[in-house]
Amino acid sequence: MKLSNKVEAMQFSPIRKFNPIAQKAKDAGKKVYHLNIGQPDVETPECFMDAIRNYENKVIAYAESGGITDLQDAVSDYFKTYGMNIGRENMIVTTGGSEALTMTFLSILNEGDEVLIAEPFYTNYHTFATSAGGKVVPITTKAEEGYHYATREQIEPLITEKTKAICCINPGNPTGTVLTKEEMKLIGDIAKEHDLWIIADEVYREFAYDGREAVSFGQIAEVEDRVIIIDSVSKRFSACGARIGFLISKNTDFIANVMKIAQGRLCVSTVDQVGAAALFRLPKEYYEEVKAEYCARRDVVYEELMKIPGVVGQKPGGSFYLTAKLPVDNIEDFLMFLLTEFDDNGETVMFAPAEGFYATPGLGKDEMRIAYVLNQEDMRRGVELIRLGIEAYNKR
Amino acid sequence: MKLSNKVEAMQFSPIRKFNPIAQKAKDAGKKVYHLNIGQPDVETPECFMDAIRNYENKVIAYAESGGITDLQDAVSDYFKTYGMNIGRENMIVTTGGSEALTMTFLSILNEGDEVLIAEPFYTNYHTFATSAGGKVVPITTKAEEGYHYATREQIEPLITEKTKAICCINPGNPTGTVLTKEEMKLIGDIAKEHDLWIIADEVYREFAYDGREAVSFGQIAEVEDRVIIIDSVSKRFSACGARIGFLISKNTDFIANVMKIAQGRLCVSTVDQVGAAALFRLPKEYYEEVKAEYCARRDVVYEELMKIPGVVGQKPGGSFYLTAKLPVDNIEDFLMFLLTEFDDNGETVMFAPAEGFYATPGLGKDEMRIAYVLNQEDMRRGVELIRLGIEAYNKR
Repeated sequence: MKLSNKVEAMQFSPIRKFNPIAQKAKDAGKKVYHLNIGQPDVETPECFMDAIRNYENKVIAYAESGGITDLQDAVSDYFKTYGMNIGRENMIVTTGGSEALTMTFLSILNEGDEVLIAEPFYTNYHTFATSAGGKVVPITTKAEEGYHYATREQIEPLITEKTKAICCINPGNPTGTVLTKEEMKLIGDIAKEHDLWIIADEVYREFAYDGREAVSFGQIAEVEDRVIIIDSVSKRFSACGARIGFLISKNTDFIANVMKIAQGRLCVSTVDQVGAAALFRLPKEYYEEVKAEYCARRDVVYEELMKIPGVVGQKPGGSFYLTAKLPVDNIEDFLMFLLTEFDDNGETVMFAPAEGFYATPGLGKDEMRIAYVLNQEDMRRGVELIRLGIEAYNKR
Repeated sequence: MKLSNKVEAMQFSPIRKFNPIAQKAKDAGKKVYHLNIGQPDVETPECFMDAIRNYENKVIAYAESGGITDLQDAVSDYFKTYGMNIGRENMIVTTGGSEALTMTFLSILNEGDEVLIAEPFYTNYHTFATSAGGKVVPITTKAEEGYHYATREQIEPLITEKTKAICCINPGNPTGTVLTKEEMKLIGDIAKEHDLWIIADEVYREFAYDGREAVSFGQIAEVEDRVIIIDSVSKRFSACGARIGFLISKNTDFIANVMKIAQGRLCVSTVDQVGAAALFRLPKEYYEEVKAEYCARRDVVYEELMKIPGVVGQKPGGSFYLTAKLPVDNIEDFLMFLLTEFDDNGETVMFAPAEGFYATPGLGKDEMRIAYVLNQEDMRRGVELIRLGIEAYNKR
């Protein structure tokens, strides 16, 4: 029996690839600082489990395919604070942002169709696009330019008759780059001129620092019929294991068709939805507190990183990631060194090699991604270990 | 902006199509007996919510992509009672049986590939196969023959070079038909001869009546490398809203490749997995009790149904569905009559018209599916209302 071409074209997670080696280091007694995955140590607000604990139904029944109305209404209220009028009819609750992306690609891509995405990009976009028979076409960005991509010169030459959408994750993963309002407007103009969908992955919406405003592509009225917002409770509420996401659009034809897929898979976890509804009723101060904490972590990471001679990168404006060039030839080789040969007082560190985030072969070989999801002290020590590791690595 | 051919080829749920009309009847004060959907009224065992209530982690974090080990081990122990040796490496926990089916089709079907499925069939197979670019080829079965399909004469002429798998839901939805061990063996032989995967959807495994043994395709050693088992907690534990399913196979190449998709969507709900692990630790008596209850409901339904002159159908051997021919020309027209014109003491009834379960145009126009998911008294009254409805309908 054969497997499909699609599944064979998919790749294993480059983020998880080094896990067995890290496990070996830990088994050997080393402490490993995990700066490699986006799993925050921030506590999930207690209201999530409280709401679930209070759920009294005797039968854990199917929920509505588009989501339970209580959650939909809480999300609707949340978007009102952004001046956006998102009704129940504009949203489908999904199993994480992942399912929202899968459903989106499946609904807009035919075999061989293309989606523009700035590289380095969140690798699973490749998996989701491939699942739908489509292809990611990268807009290449550079560490030296803070990974910015929103110019006409960078985007337009890549548009072909196969291009169906431009996908913007804003604030960005893995780079932490944040689009300006002017850049968003320009992307809107380009999408309109070339009749493209805008897939706006905004799961890090509130994590925009240094006075940057939290924004949404849904606020640009001129393109609201072509914007598909991907959202999730995972990062915003540090509830990654809750698997509650959203697909939001003012395009009723799009939502109606996605509903066929949603009905096919029946529904999203009932208890997770009950918990998520409580999360969206948290006061505005919650977002401010969490943002302040991540911003402080970013500052620590950036400060420590700049102590490394030869590092290239700009201070990221949002999310909780940072991508930078290190003064090493081969980042995977360096990571292997950190996990197998290096330690400082029995401690070492792990990051995500950025090569897997690039679609263009050969790029990213000297870049790493850090997720600043640990407390400030751990983040400082983690980056210090990278610095000490580089010194030891280049001295060999 | 255009939508994809795939999503446009999908259909809306034929089971949910009449919901708005039923709602209108209810708004007008009628009581509607819902025999149309597979949402049981059986209480979810309390251990599910108890385990979740006791979950103390402060961070609701990502689970392992293949599932939490505690759940995997509980499932492994469950399969030991079937004499099957299913280890962690043979399973991937999924978001319901739905995701298990989606991942399976995506992993084995190329554009235009075919899967054999007995019709009438669970309509969402069509959605999942279409998502993957594949196609369902129906093995047509008949009410007069109890919807049996497992003969060489019925199956072999349908096999082409495009056929990649035969999918058996056993016990069946929507027919309740149960395969004999000889029939399973024959399907195994055919799959081997024609190099096909066997997709064994066994979510109703324990619901086999009249002395029939609960069995699995995984027990047939000669085909264990080509069997993909789809499983779920939804029906077995009346936990449809928990969205916990499983994809199980001894084919390590298959599991390794599906893991790429599993990693792409990150993980399944953490709290649902915690609850599901408790469900799989229920004693064997739980299954016996639930089976006895459904069997009694089936007996009531069948007894009442046989009071209707002209009805054609056999007593189903398993699951909690029954499909039968009614003495009406057009089943959808009859259902519309029941919901809009008919009542008996202010009560009416709803079933699923079977036409949507057929891939062959024109079939099923006089057939209905009943889900015997309500208590015996309600089931008896529901079928009585069908009988009274037919009398009124044919008298017009």
